[in-house]
Amino acid sequence: SKHYNIAVLAGDGIGPEVMAEAEKVLAVVADKFQFGLTLTPALVGGAAIDATGEPLPAATLELCKNSDAILFGSVGGPKWTGLAPDKQPERGSLLPLRKTFDLFCNLRPGQIYPAFADLSPLHPRVSSLGMDVLCVRELTGGIYFGEKGRTATDAFDTQRYSVAEIERIAKVAFAAATKRSNKVTSIDKANVLQTSILWRETVERVAKDYPGVTLEHMYIDNAAMQLIRSPQQFDVLLCDNLFGDILSDEIAAIAGSLGLLPSASLNSSGFGLYEPAGGSAPDIAGKGIANPIAQILSAALMLRYSFGEEAAAQAIEQAVQHCLEQHIVTRDINPQSTYGTAAVGAAIVATL
Amino acid sequence: SKHYNIAVLAGDGIGPEVMAEAEKVLAVVADKFQFGLTLTPALVGGAAIDATGEPLPAATLELCKNSDAILFGSVGGPKWTGLAPDKQPERGSLLPLRKTFDLFCNLRPGQIYPAFADLSPLHPRVSSLGMDVLCVRELTGGIYFGEKGRTATDAFDTQRYSVAEIERIAKVAFAAATKRSNKVTSIDKANVLQTSILWRETVERVAKDYPGVTLEHMYIDNAAMQLIRSPQQFDVLLCDNLFGDILSDEIAAIAGSLGLLPSASLNSSGFGLYEPAGGSAPDIAGKGIANPIAQILSAALMLRYSFGEEAAAQAIEQAVQHCLEQHIVTRDINPQSTYGTAAVGAAIVATL
Ligand SMILES: CC(C)[C@H](C(=O)O)[C@@H](O)C(=O)O
Ligand SMILES: CC(C)[C@H](C(=O)O)[C@@H](O)C(=O)O
Repeated sequence: SKHYNIAVLAGDGIGPEVMAEAEKVLAVVADKFQFGLTLTPALVGGAAIDATGEPLPAATLELCKNSDAILFGSVGGPKWTGLAPDKQPERGSLLPLRKTFDLFCNLRPGQIYPAFADLSPLHPRVSSLGMDVLCVRELTGGIYFGEKGRTATDAFDTQRYSVAEIERIAKVAFAAATKRSNKVTSIDKANVLQTSILWRETVERVAKDYPGVTLEHMYIDNAAMQLIRSPQQFDVLLCDNLFGDILSDEIAAIAGSLGLLPSASLNSSGFGLYEPAGGSAPDIAGKGIANPIAQILSAALMLRYSFGEEAAAQAIEQAVQHCLEQHIVTRDINPQSTYGTAAVGAAIVATL
Repeated sequence: SKHYNIAVLAGDGIGPEVMAEAEKVLAVVADKFQFGLTLTPALVGGAAIDATGEPLPAATLELCKNSDAILFGSVGGPKWTGLAPDKQPERGSLLPLRKTFDLFCNLRPGQIYPAFADLSPLHPRVSSLGMDVLCVRELTGGIYFGEKGRTATDAFDTQRYSVAEIERIAKVAFAAATKRSNKVTSIDKANVLQTSILWRETVERVAKDYPGVTLEHMYIDNAAMQLIRSPQQFDVLLCDNLFGDILSDEIAAIAGSLGLLPSASLNSSGFGLYEPAGGSAPDIAGKGIANPIAQILSAALMLRYSFGEEAAAQAIEQAVQHCLEQHIVTRDINPQSTYGTAAVGAAIVATL
């Protein structure tokens, strides 16, 4: 029978507490949908730095290589901000993991749920129209990984893209749009960047294979503006690495509910890293009040994308939806709420 | 007595209509504050392409070289979107003007005026706290002007910054902060980019000369998020060329009043280009309903920064404020309003 090995990298701050709830949920759906799971924890981020001096120890990387997917919590905190950039918890773990496993495709959904429109920092006249976007971000190319260097008086970074890199992420965006509202907005700065011109040409060619999907191009500056003015106009946003970094966080801010937003980072053979969109929130760590939903929904994405366990993924998503409707939520969603991390996790488990 | 020569590049769409009002206002303050003005029009953007084939004809550039400042309207429209990037109205005029005159410093203020907080697409619980930011954007370096190129299958762009380039823009930001709320938030992506690490180091060194100013660093992705969640936390934002392009438009969206926002692009000898933050708005061009205030406030910035005519600049700003308070505004500010472009211009002139 089916069995999946999962590397569990809980990390820092609220990571361990929310991960504990996701693990409980996974155990229940494994039982219900009859598959086996082995969850193996490993050190990452600041916790790993403290124990080994490295944000991504060799043993952790080795475990990931021998697993079917990575369930990632969150990393970082004030303790480690003074370190050199490539030693820092977030960058020092996420960038090598993305590169090692060729996780070129980052998916970050962002919604304004009608029932929770008031969570959004947007005006009700805007938020009441809703938002339901999927940000498809290229994750292993661009200015993140191009040649870079510096002297005492100068520095440079290179943004590089090939047609092949653009094609594979564009295909993901169009395929996703066919299962959503059939619209792709491709983000670039083609009035300034050569990589953007190549991006635009390539995306237009890929679009020909998806005649049912409407393609529109938008400059990054205009997109940063339009997302605030009328986020309901968007369906799938297709972005390079840097623009996707910026817009996916802007989308998360607009949704107003970081604690509800999962993400998936995939390669072409279905391997993936799954993590909540929010950070390690050191200010509330250890208090039992962190929202576990983004971590639990990240686990659902893992079941869907890496294991093809669609029914189990949907069961989790429905259980989460049910709890939201019953207002069984943590304080970030409802300041009056008395439910904590464990109570919300337990309610989702009970619903399942 | 003092006399200033101004190159007037009205451009396309609503450019000419709003420029006409700014010219009237300038004539009145010149008279009142006793300086001479010569306003010489020249072709730019789509209008110039239609007449000469070039978005920035040699004659226009020559006029600018012989002027004390450039008052710019807006350029572009659907007619010219099919052109190659460097022939397009906006890019083809603005980038060469910035480079020719070394306009390294772009200033874009963005406010949520308490009386007009409802213009903002942000929720009243956020917008009622107000926003008063000045975006200081480096405008002649970075990925805009670095080496770039492409083959059939690859493309690249280079972001390059020198300490000298960073220093001069940082000084502007700190000096501006001393006249505002003494806070600079420097935007970078120092966890990924070498140019950002150099940026951060250099900004910290410059900060030592401004002990009264608080410096904070923020990653671009977090800034895109924080601006939406709590824009009132910011005073001066210091950005490189690309990040400033994105955040200044995000700020404009948050202000909700593009028609009120001016901008200044300066070099180190006081020469500058002044333009409204909004675009050419071809959909409403020729209807007499465009908001002239951003263009008029851009003229005020010209008086302040290029000519040192502080009293005249303030007189314009106060007259604009007065009209806003009297609700003498165009429809973009108040949909029920019956005031058009000329009526608002006339009211500002009358107030003066
Ligand atoms: C930590 C950092 C390098 C990373 C990125 O910029 O990709 C983060 O912001 C993210 O979006 O996952
Ligand atoms: C037209 C374009 C090249 C320009 C820029 O990106 O700088 C514009 O967006 C701006 O902000 O003035």
